[in-house]
Amino acid sequence: MKIAPGAELSRRQLLQLGMTATAATLIGGGGAFAFPPQAPALGDPLPSWNDGPAKRAILDFIHLTTDRSSPKFVPTAQRIATFDQDGTLWVEHPMYSQVVYCFDRAPAVVKAKPELENVEPFRTVLTGDREAIAKLPTDELIKILVATLTGMSVDDFESQAKHWLGTARDPRWKKLYTELTYLPMTEVLKHMRDNGYKTYIVTGGGQDFVRTYAEQVYGIPPEQVVGTAGGTSFGYDESGKPLLTKDPKLLLNDDNAGKPEGIHLMIGRRPFAAFGNSSGDRQMLEYTKAGSGERLAILLLHDDREREYAYGPAQGLPDTKVGRFTQALYDEAKSKDWTVVSMKSDWKRIFAFHS
Amino acid sequence: MKIAPGAELSRRQLLQLGMTATAATLIGGGGAFAFPPQAPALGDPLPSWNDGPAKRAILDFIHLTTDRSSPKFVPTAQRIATFDQDGTLWVEHPMYSQVVYCFDRAPAVVKAKPELENVEPFRTVLTGDREAIAKLPTDELIKILVATLTGMSVDDFESQAKHWLGTARDPRWKKLYTELTYLPMTEVLKHMRDNGYKTYIVTGGGQDFVRTYAEQVYGIPPEQVVGTAGGTSFGYDESGKPLLTKDPKLLLNDDNAGKPEGIHLMIGRRPFAAFGNSSGDRQMLEYTKAGSGERLAILLLHDDREREYAYGPAQGLPDTKVGRFTQALYDEAKSKDWTVVSMKSDWKRIFAFHS
Repeated sequence: MKIAPGAELSRRQLLQLGMTATAATLIGGGGAFAFPPQAPALGDPLPSWNDGPAKRAILDFIHLTTDRSSPKFVPTAQRIATFDQDGTLWVEHPMYSQVVYCFDRAPAVVKAKPELENVEPFRTVLTGDREAIAKLPTDELIKILVATLTGMSVDDFESQAKHWLGTARDPRWKKLYTELTYLPMTEVLKHMRDNGYKTYIVTGGGQDFVRTYAEQVYGIPPEQVVGTAGGTSFGYDESGKPLLTKDPKLLLNDDNAGKPEGIHLMIGRRPFAAFGNSSGDRQMLEYTKAGSGERLAILLLHDDREREYAYGPAQGLPDTKVGRFTQALYDEAKSKDWTVVSMKSDWKRIFAFHS
Repeated sequence: MKIAPGAELSRRQLLQLGMTATAATLIGGGGAFAFPPQAPALGDPLPSWNDGPAKRAILDFIHLTTDRSSPKFVPTAQRIATFDQDGTLWVEHPMYSQVVYCFDRAPAVVKAKPELENVEPFRTVLTGDREAIAKLPTDELIKILVATLTGMSVDDFESQAKHWLGTARDPRWKKLYTELTYLPMTEVLKHMRDNGYKTYIVTGGGQDFVRTYAEQVYGIPPEQVVGTAGGTSFGYDESGKPLLTKDPKLLLNDDNAGKPEGIHLMIGRRPFAAFGNSSGDRQMLEYTKAGSGERLAILLLHDDREREYAYGPAQGLPDTKVGRFTQALYDEAKSKDWTVVSMKSDWKRIFAFHS
């Protein structure tokens, strides 16, 4: 099944189901600034950003925390920056790419286990009938996630995910999903690393899924990807070779309060900077800002229907179940000196493929 | 209660209880070689090692995997080396230092909650009567671990552990526990890092406990410490400030099969080198050696009663419940080309404080 635009009702229902499954299982300025002396970039390190308060907040923060003469100087070892992924580093609409992966992967699972062909929910998913799929109960859909994300060795899962990422195309731009990264954010990642920051992904998505491409796509190695994580079981194959098998057992639901909990588990240090775009990032930003010294909290607002998508419901934008940014979150950001980035007005370009 | 040598029976029983609690809860080439060009060290990088097969295996491995002209060359991003801690990087006899910490910490817990004073097992622990303590059932002793390792904020726990580590002395040498690190192993850590390896601790001990000192003692930052880990809960204090509280909920039992499982969860890459000293490290070494290319697996044998401790029961050494190295593990090492280090004959010096 390929998910394409159109059929608004059933897509929305599917998104709702995808969201529920996520929670339940594994899816999870400019020229005016003096750059810190260690920054190798000449000229503007954030050329895809328009001059304005958002760009200035990022550049000021990096300068303040890396300039040795600054009272807010942060030693290199402590420079941790965390980034949500879906909706913060790449596109999450109309549906999280990992959910699309699970549905696309279902036929291969049935091919390997033909006895599933006439068993629900596989029978319905194989028909490709979106309306029928949207009516499947949540616990049936979770069976699809479990069947496509667990039960195989970690090496086999990596191969399967990499194959899909190398071939599947998104419904709107017909690009590989890995091309749907936000150019302004890859500039931030690079500029922070150039200034000694360790950049981490902290995602509600599946840790193993994101690890298959984060190094190639963002320059973020597997050990710096924190995500919703299931357990594995160590064992041996028929030849006696050790292997790890992915279990349908949730260890970390890395969303909402799970984000600071996951940061403590996997990193063990409080970030100095955190970037997100939805209510699922709220606690991560609160935790980050509660630390001493200079801290940066950034939220992206998807307000550019033309170039990407527009959703909130903050600021009267259309409501959504995927990457919901509530007015309460917007108000908290404004009251706590977090920076809200308008993708429409703060970003010159959104994608590298847009010239 | 301070644990001192002597009272053999009760100490052994206590160790047994400590071990059970560990599993159940939170405790968890010399001049002949050409050095790789990026190695900054001049002369011998492992001066506390005697020349021999063990030193040669380590130096050969580093050279083979970091020399660009070697067919076994490993790109820097993939250079992961994992080290068990208790018995591999520092002394674990007569008892894991974290277990000592828990008993030493019990009086402060009772002081904060006086209602515990006449409640078991606290009443018995406060008497300091080792024989009575040794007779406490395991589930009573686990209450001590839970009371001293959970229920507080992660920041408070860090302060408490750091205070103890800065004051408590071991029973034999009367040194701070952090002085009981093995000098030859700190040389290996440094030499591997000098050659682009990321060094990780992978310990059955408590991840939060080890993180409080690993950076200062080993140069290993918190995000490179993988250990037995409990969950935390995100919440807010009375003033509304976010905080994380340590829960008595086990997420990862990082011992035996849990070591490769923990490596996958926290690192996401298979190590190229792994160091251990007991049967709890077996699966980590098997997993490491099962990777392609050149891999290094090292086991330390504690066979030096004079300078440290002697225990196996491998090779006829005295049996133990703390850091057990069985003959089966020894035989597996010999049959699979793992290197067994004799602390007695391979190490010139054991501690920095021994001149």
